[in-house]
Amino acid sequence: MTVQLTPVPDHIPLPAGFRAAGLHCGLKKNQQFDLGLLLAEQAVAASAIFTRNELLGAHIPVCRDHLEKSGGRVRAVLVNARNANCATGQRGIEDARLCCAELATRLRCPIEQVLMASTGPIGAPLPRQRIVDHLDALLARASRDGGMDFARAIMTTDTYAKAVHTTVGAGGVTGFAKGSGMIHPNMATMLGFLLTDGSLTPADSALLQRVADASFHRVTVDGDTSPNDSLFLLASGSHTIGLGKVEQGLLETGQQLARTIAADGEGATRLVTVQVRGARDEAEATHVGRIIATSPLVKTAVAGRDPNWGRILSAAGRAGVTFPAELARVWVGAADVYSGGLPHPENEPAAHQHLANDTCIVLGIDLAVGKAAADVWTCDLTKDYVQINADYRS
Amino acid sequence: MTVQLTPVPDHIPLPAGFRAAGLHCGLKKNQQFDLGLLLAEQAVAASAIFTRNELLGAHIPVCRDHLEKSGGRVRAVLVNARNANCATGQRGIEDARLCCAELATRLRCPIEQVLMASTGPIGAPLPRQRIVDHLDALLARASRDGGMDFARAIMTTDTYAKAVHTTVGAGGVTGFAKGSGMIHPNMATMLGFLLTDGSLTPADSALLQRVADASFHRVTVDGDTSPNDSLFLLASGSHTIGLGKVEQGLLETGQQLARTIAADGEGATRLVTVQVRGARDEAEATHVGRIIATSPLVKTAVAGRDPNWGRILSAAGRAGVTFPAELARVWVGAADVYSGGLPHPENEPAAHQHLANDTCIVLGIDLAVGKAAADVWTCDLTKDYVQINADYRS
Repeated sequence: MTVQLTPVPDHIPLPAGFRAAGLHCGLKKNQQFDLGLLLAEQAVAASAIFTRNELLGAHIPVCRDHLEKSGGRVRAVLVNARNANCATGQRGIEDARLCCAELATRLRCPIEQVLMASTGPIGAPLPRQRIVDHLDALLARASRDGGMDFARAIMTTDTYAKAVHTTVGAGGVTGFAKGSGMIHPNMATMLGFLLTDGSLTPADSALLQRVADASFHRVTVDGDTSPNDSLFLLASGSHTIGLGKVEQGLLETGQQLARTIAADGEGATRLVTVQVRGARDEAEATHVGRIIATSPLVKTAVAGRDPNWGRILSAAGRAGVTFPAELARVWVGAADVYSGGLPHPENEPAAHQHLANDTCIVLGIDLAVGKAAADVWTCDLTKDYVQINADYRS
Repeated sequence: MTVQLTPVPDHIPLPAGFRAAGLHCGLKKNQQFDLGLLLAEQAVAASAIFTRNELLGAHIPVCRDHLEKSGGRVRAVLVNARNANCATGQRGIEDARLCCAELATRLRCPIEQVLMASTGPIGAPLPRQRIVDHLDALLARASRDGGMDFARAIMTTDTYAKAVHTTVGAGGVTGFAKGSGMIHPNMATMLGFLLTDGSLTPADSALLQRVADASFHRVTVDGDTSPNDSLFLLASGSHTIGLGKVEQGLLETGQQLARTIAADGEGATRLVTVQVRGARDEAEATHVGRIIATSPLVKTAVAGRDPNWGRILSAAGRAGVTFPAELARVWVGAADVYSGGLPHPENEPAAHQHLANDTCIVLGIDLAVGKAAADVWTCDLTKDYVQINADYRS
């Protein structure tokens, strides 16, 4: 039973200028949707961020090539689940390009205006024919109401679909994501999609990096990044919205999706927000937060409902950041469990209550060396996580 | 059931010039030994390496101070288990110093010739009186036959005592260690002790760093270092042994202890040796090995007896080291499971047999960028690990 922050919506609004679709093309079992499409009425400004893993899914070099050739103008993004098209050699790249070409032909647009993303187990050839055979049906289904179909189509081991809409001025931002690759069996991937009807030129791709750094890049479950991680931003420009407002809407949407990914982590029973305060700068705060959020000892303590200040402090202590442990402060929920170089056992019952009764947990540390802060999201480490990942292929 | 590489010896020889002892002073339950002593007939050359954690056990500043004042000459090392004397403030430092002073008085030596190490849960004051009250009995028991008593006295959640003897020329090296702090509940510690009757001047402390870097520093279980990690080297100089031979003996002893620590990891059912080959230099090979050896996805795959080449390759791929994934090679035992950019499913049955039937597992990767190599030791990640660390204080 993972943590669900909000009920999954029956319907998600799309920004002006976009349609979406999802259907079953035969990759997943039981008629589950496994092929999704995001479609822009006309070529729109697009940018993307990809995994830094040395191992790359085949869709990544293809997307990079298309974004460069198109100057960041995109008509469609095609997404398949249940096959990562990774470690598939040259054939994998040709398969991805063929899918883009077949879709481009049907859209009567240049191939470089079509992007693709794949997610699922790696090492198996992409069943490209099944995908191509369903492109006409997929296009026929593309509609203003297709958002949740798309959200369902990109799911892998997610226990629920992840879609978020944020109103911005006259328009808005709609975001979709699938489960964190970092905790995903056999290196399937995190995929994120942000659509807005605000106006963004391709030159604003630095904006996407800023948004990702403060949202998706602050989710960690076990620190295992994946070869297919990809985040896409498409902006139709149908509405005139101030750039600052658009970025704020993208950030809120991204952060909500990021929290949802952590909440739906494999085997998770708690969403954990690690609050780092009193750091020299935000990068340092984020780094320390990631170390704490990836510590198996911290995460198993949360699974055990144990306000284990020692594990939090010690994890921060090995982050490679200098700070005076005797001046640091550690809290669990609202309870101060360590400060002045000493633990406060008298506050541990309140901290235990927070861990036992709330599903959204706060673990915090003040490093006492500056004023910078950052939050990082993760989940607890349970036996179910081990079970899911140990039994995946057995 | 953890992995036991060799039967625990009934008796462990000590290098000339040393005695050892262990007894129960009241920190552990059931009369288990919890206070240990390593005693040199006269002050001997000593050096030590301590944790890099920002949070430090109280014994560490005391040991650093004593080693500096004594010029690296030591008569005795006192060790207690079941209390880390960490996060105990100024009082903790005074407690450690008092224990050293009381022992020094009895040995009629300067206080700076006495070192101390503590291991166990953090945050509770050191029961110093219990320790002091048992110093006379401890000294009375110190003998040439006391090695295994000492090995038992420093155990925490170790399932068996860890002592290794290596003959070197006319003399030898004896090493003791207790369970890896990296996987230890509530941040108790890894402690290591190396004794030799070879001749080493304090100036040879760089030698201890070399030995540690190629032994204890290559064990990782969950990457959580502890505030009390300490490694001590004492050399009596009773025998004339070439420095190179002594270093080789120390290295073999340290590596054997390091493997034993990984084999006895909490919940472990497999000892895993991660072999990294074809790196640019040894540091790069060691770094990649540590990333693979700390990957929960790799470690849960071993627990599931799954020859999951994708998780090994992807973990290496996120190490921050550039290498051509299409030229890399991944093996499990003797089976080649990935090369030439493609998996080799036909070899997975052999790899599965290795995982299912052998307790000492080999996972390897060739990065194809150089000639450097390194091995890193870890264990699998099982539900028992989660259970042990989640239930520790509940």
